[in-house]
Formats: sequence, C-alpha cells, structure tokens
Amino acid sequence: MCSVFDRDLSGEQQRLELILLPELGRQSQLVTLQNGSTAELVCGATDQDDCAAYSLSGDSVLVMGSDYVRGVRFSLYELGYLQPYDLGWYLSSANFSDIAAMGARPLGLLSVVRYPPDMDDRDFGQVIAGIRDGAAACGGLNVGGDIGHAERLILSASAFGLVAPGRLLRRSGARPGQAVLLSGPTGVARAALVAARAGVLEELPTQLAEILLAPWRRARPRVRHAALFAKAEGVSSCIDTSDGLMAALEQLSSRSRVAVEVELDRIPVDEAVVGVAKRLSLALPDLVLGDSVDFELVCTVDEERAADLMRRASALGLDLFHIGRVADGSGVAVL
Amino acid sequence: MCSVFDRDLSGEQQRLELILLPELGRQSQLVTLQNGSTAELVCGATDQDDCAAYSLSGDSVLVMGSDYVRGVRFSLYELGYLQPYDLGWYLSSANFSDIAAMGARPLGLLSVVRYPPDMDDRDFGQVIAGIRDGAAACGGLNVGGDIGHAERLILSASAFGLVAPGRLLRRSGARPGQAVLLSGPTGVARAALVAARAGVLEELPTQLAEILLAPWRRARPRVRHAALFAKAEGVSSCIDTSDGLMAALEQLSSRSRVAVEVELDRIPVDEAVVGVAKRLSLALPDLVLGDSVDFELVCTVDEERAADLMRRASALGLDLFHIGRVADGSGVAVL
Repeated sequence: MCSVFDRDLSGEQQRLELILLPELGRQSQLVTLQNGSTAELVCGATDQDDCAAYSLSGDSVLVMGSDYVRGVRFSLYELGYLQPYDLGWYLSSANFSDIAAMGARPLGLLSVVRYPPDMDDRDFGQVIAGIRDGAAACGGLNVGGDIGHAERLILSASAFGLVAPGRLLRRSGARPGQAVLLSGPTGVARAALVAARAGVLEELPTQLAEILLAPWRRARPRVRHAALFAKAEGVSSCIDTSDGLMAALEQLSSRSRVAVEVELDRIPVDEAVVGVAKRLSLALPDLVLGDSVDFELVCTVDEERAADLMRRASALGLDLFHIGRVADGSGVAVL
Repeated sequence: MCSVFDRDLSGEQQRLELILLPELGRQSQLVTLQNGSTAELVCGATDQDDCAAYSLSGDSVLVMGSDYVRGVRFSLYELGYLQPYDLGWYLSSANFSDIAAMGARPLGLLSVVRYPPDMDDRDFGQVIAGIRDGAAACGGLNVGGDIGHAERLILSASAFGLVAPGRLLRRSGARPGQAVLLSGPTGVARAALVAARAGVLEELPTQLAEILLAPWRRARPRVRHAALFAKAEGVSSCIDTSDGLMAALEQLSSRSRVAVEVELDRIPVDEAVVGVAKRLSLALPDLVLGDSVDFELVCTVDEERAADLMRRASALGLDLFHIGRVADGSGVAVL
C-alpha cells in the first residue's frame, strides 16, 4: 500500500479505487445473525454498483445505498429556482433511484438534515415535508435520522428496499446479444442547469421551463419500471442515469465487460432539451448523453424478450425505448 | 401549523417536536412489497427511539439508524488526541451502538466520508480503515456509501441490523417494579474531554489517559449485551448512554411514562474518572451522570429475573450492574 500512500491528495476516483476498495475488500462477506444463521453480502462496495445488498435468510434481499446531496447540484437552489421543499424531494428521489436501479422496491429512508443558522422554521419544515412526500411518491417512508445545525445546509440520506432472491439487478449482468432499453428522455436536468446558468431559463415559455425543472423539483425515480424489470424474465442488468446516459452506459460496459452500442436517433429526446440546444447553439447529443441527473433507468434484456417487455411496460403506462444492443468487446459506441 | 411557522429559528428539540414529528406523523406505517405482502414500520421517527424498525415478512425485524458525526465531538481530534483512524472507528461505533440499543444484531454500515481539501491520502485511508475495523468489531460490514470533497471533514453513517420478531427493545417498554441494569461505567468519555480541555490529560499516568480515551478511540458498542437482552425473558426496554447516563434514564422514564430511581453508590465508576474528578475538583456524580458518549446500555428487566440475567452475563464475561428500579410516577431520582 506504500505506493498509494506516497501519492497524496489524489482525486475522488483514485481514492475510491486505490484506497477505499482495497480497504473494504479485506472484509468477510458473511455476517452471523442472532439465530445462528448468516446473511451474505452479495453486493458490496467493491462491486461498485448503485447499492449494496444482503441476502437475508428467508425470502428477501435487502438493498441499501447512501447519497450525500450538496455542492454543485444545489446551484439551481442558489439561483432561486429551487425551494427548500424541492431539495427535500430531491434527496428522497436521488436515494430511491439507486434502490430502483437494483430492481428493488423502496422500503424506507433515513435522512440527515443539517441546517445553517439562517434557515428559519418554515424552510426547515418544507425540507422535511419534501423528503416525506418524495419518499411517499416512491412508495417508501421517511423513518427519521438526524437533524441539527451546520455551517451550511447538508442533506444526506440512506435508502433501503427489498427484492426477491435471484432478482437483484446489477450493473455487471449485461450479456452480448441483449437489447439496451431506456425508460425516458435524458439530459433534461442538464439542460435546465445550462439554461439557468446562461440566464435564459426565464426567457423560455413557462411550460418548457417547468419541464426542464421537473427532474430537480419533482423527480420521479422509476420504481415501477424497476418492479417490472425485476419480475420479467431475461432482464439481466440495470443502472440509473443519475450521472448521465453516457456514464450509465460506460458503467454497464465496464462492469459487465461488454461493448454497448446505441443508436443516437433511437434515444428519446425531450422537446424542451431541443429548445435549449437551439437557443444556446449547443450540440444536442452533448446534452442528451452528458452528465445529467434524470433518474431514468437503463436495462439490458434478452433480445427475443425485448418486444414483450416493452409491451408489458406500455400496458402499465410506462415508457420504454429500445436504444441499442450489447456486443462482445468493450466500450460504448454511439452510432 | 401556523403557530409553528411563526416562530422562526427555534432550537433543535423544538424543530424535532413541532415540525419534524408532525410532518412525519402523517405517513402511513405500511409499505407494499413486490410480492404483494406488506412491511410495517413498527418504530418510526415519531417513536423517538434509538432507531427505526420494520417488521418484514418472515422471521425478522429490520432495524436502522443514522448518526451524523461532527462538531463538538471532534474537539479531541482538533486537540490532537484522536487520529483519523479513531474517527472512522468512532463513526462505526456510534451507529452500531444505536442498533444494539434496540436489541438487534449489527448487519451493515453505509458511510458518508466527505473530506476537506487538505486531508491527504494517508489520512483518508486511515478513516476508511477505522470505519471498517470499527464495524468488524461489532460484527458488521461497511458496505460502502459515498465519498467526496467538502469544506470540512464530514462523517455520517447509517447502520442496519436484525432482531427476531417480538424481541425489539424500545425505550418505551419499562414497567414499574422492574430492575434497571447498566452494562458498564459511564462518564469516561466526558472525563477525557474535560481533562483534555483543562490541559491535564497529558499529566495523568499513561494508563489512566488511555482508559479515558478508549471510548473515543476504540469504543465497544455493547452488541453482546444486546444479543443477551434480546434473547432473555423479561427484558422490556433498552437505550444506549450516548448522551450520558442521566439523559438515557430520562428518556426511559419519559418514553415509558414511569419513574426511574437509581442509587448513586450502585452506579459503577471507573477509577480514571475518579482521578479526573479529584484532579480538577469536580463533583464525581456530574461526570458519571452527565453528557458523555460511553455507548453503554441501560435495560429494564423483571425484578425476579434480574439476578439470573446478571449470572448469564457474567458467564459470558460481560459486566452488568443493578443500579436501580422502575416505579410508578415520572422523572428520574438519584438516591
């Protein structure tokens, strides 16, 4: 480990790969329970998936993840486009989206709300109400956590959920020949940020601006898609697009050791994103594929079952787009 | 709710009672699972216990809690008495102690580690190693979570555990006539803080200083006591002493709507705490009863079963002290 510790102040990804994962990789994967049985950690930090997961005795797999929310993602709040209620809703959504990405049904949310000295009771109450309502929209409960002061607003949470044994959806399950499906348009959250920072968000028609801000104000993690994916035969991997569509595809590719090919003209695009791209003379694919917290889901499914899965989604009123395929090889190709 | 929101910038306890609990109290207590069965939130935020708990279908109750660690509790770190590894260990311990206080067996820990720009790789790695080893000492695993930058070191975590149905230990279960038992000496962590701030910690014999710093450096949450309490007949309530012994007793009293009487000369006192009290001319009971994060457990048990429980603890090599009794009424009396 000396070679690691000689390189000080490395970046986040380096710290993850060179320090955190080796340290946590030394752990056992089994925990002994009070009744003498064991719970197995079937997906831990070293798997670098959306969440961790334990196989419990009996009939369920417990899925859990933490997402700390602050910093750059709050710039719309600082610009006045988001209210405290929206931040609370976002905290719930960001955490439950990770649960959905594993195919699990949301159960509950533990939240940490640390508020600055100038946050008054009304705003604090609105954060709490937003967390509760955002959790409820995903079918989960806020079960409490921790509140108190801090220099700046700090929001963090842990979400947990359950999935049936054998139905956990990992990033590593994609297989050559499978279809790649996407639950909805991406790049919307990024387009909102870009438009706000360029000062043009207010110039857009109100309806367009509301569409752009929806992923920030009332994100809807794809828990119904997740339930469908977990039940359907042939779905073998899943990930959310909370770091953008390209990042999601790259993760599927690298964790599954496969190549992913998507066709640009099959990727759904929201008209509001087209509007921002035109208004600011931006390349549309950069918006649609780039870093954007849209909380859509990407899954892979056996090619011969893809049409049936899309029909079942449609019957439930859920969008689902066939955007590409998995192939032998590595990397992501946008055709 | 208007009366609440007209009173701005209320304190943490007020915000908890007047805002957070009413907001969360509006939630359902049931979550529907993918297989159509339901999980019931049997202990939520409004119960104000150490953790929340869900009754899962099958044979287990899932227990979960979050503890954010920063601020005043880090003053020993700022004074140079704690190393990054110790902080990591403490984060695990503080979170698993809450799990133990519900009678549950630790399962896993999600951790959020946000580090300041000047924390180098070695220190970061030591925080992670401390979290892992602190979790292992409790029989749990660190399953990952979230890392990244922040202005200051921020450590937060969520711990998970399991307990058998009907064996969840709440603060609200104490009944008149029961005995009050304590797992070990309290006030040690507080004595360390007081001594360090007064500048006398280094003047004490090394062995004494190490005893005082142990709750900060290598806290040992009472998970083995918890397992015993959860199995034993007649144990009806439990809480940890992470806010001090008096605060723990007051919580048992108020949540159970009973009076608690303890006898001062039955409360175990560590010689190191006596040493600090003498050295600084402090009242010993203030140290032993006051705010101190010792992670001991207090439980109540039917009087006729208390001696047997203490024998069973002794057979396992666990300390257990009979410090008082539960009575009709309210409040805490120190005799």
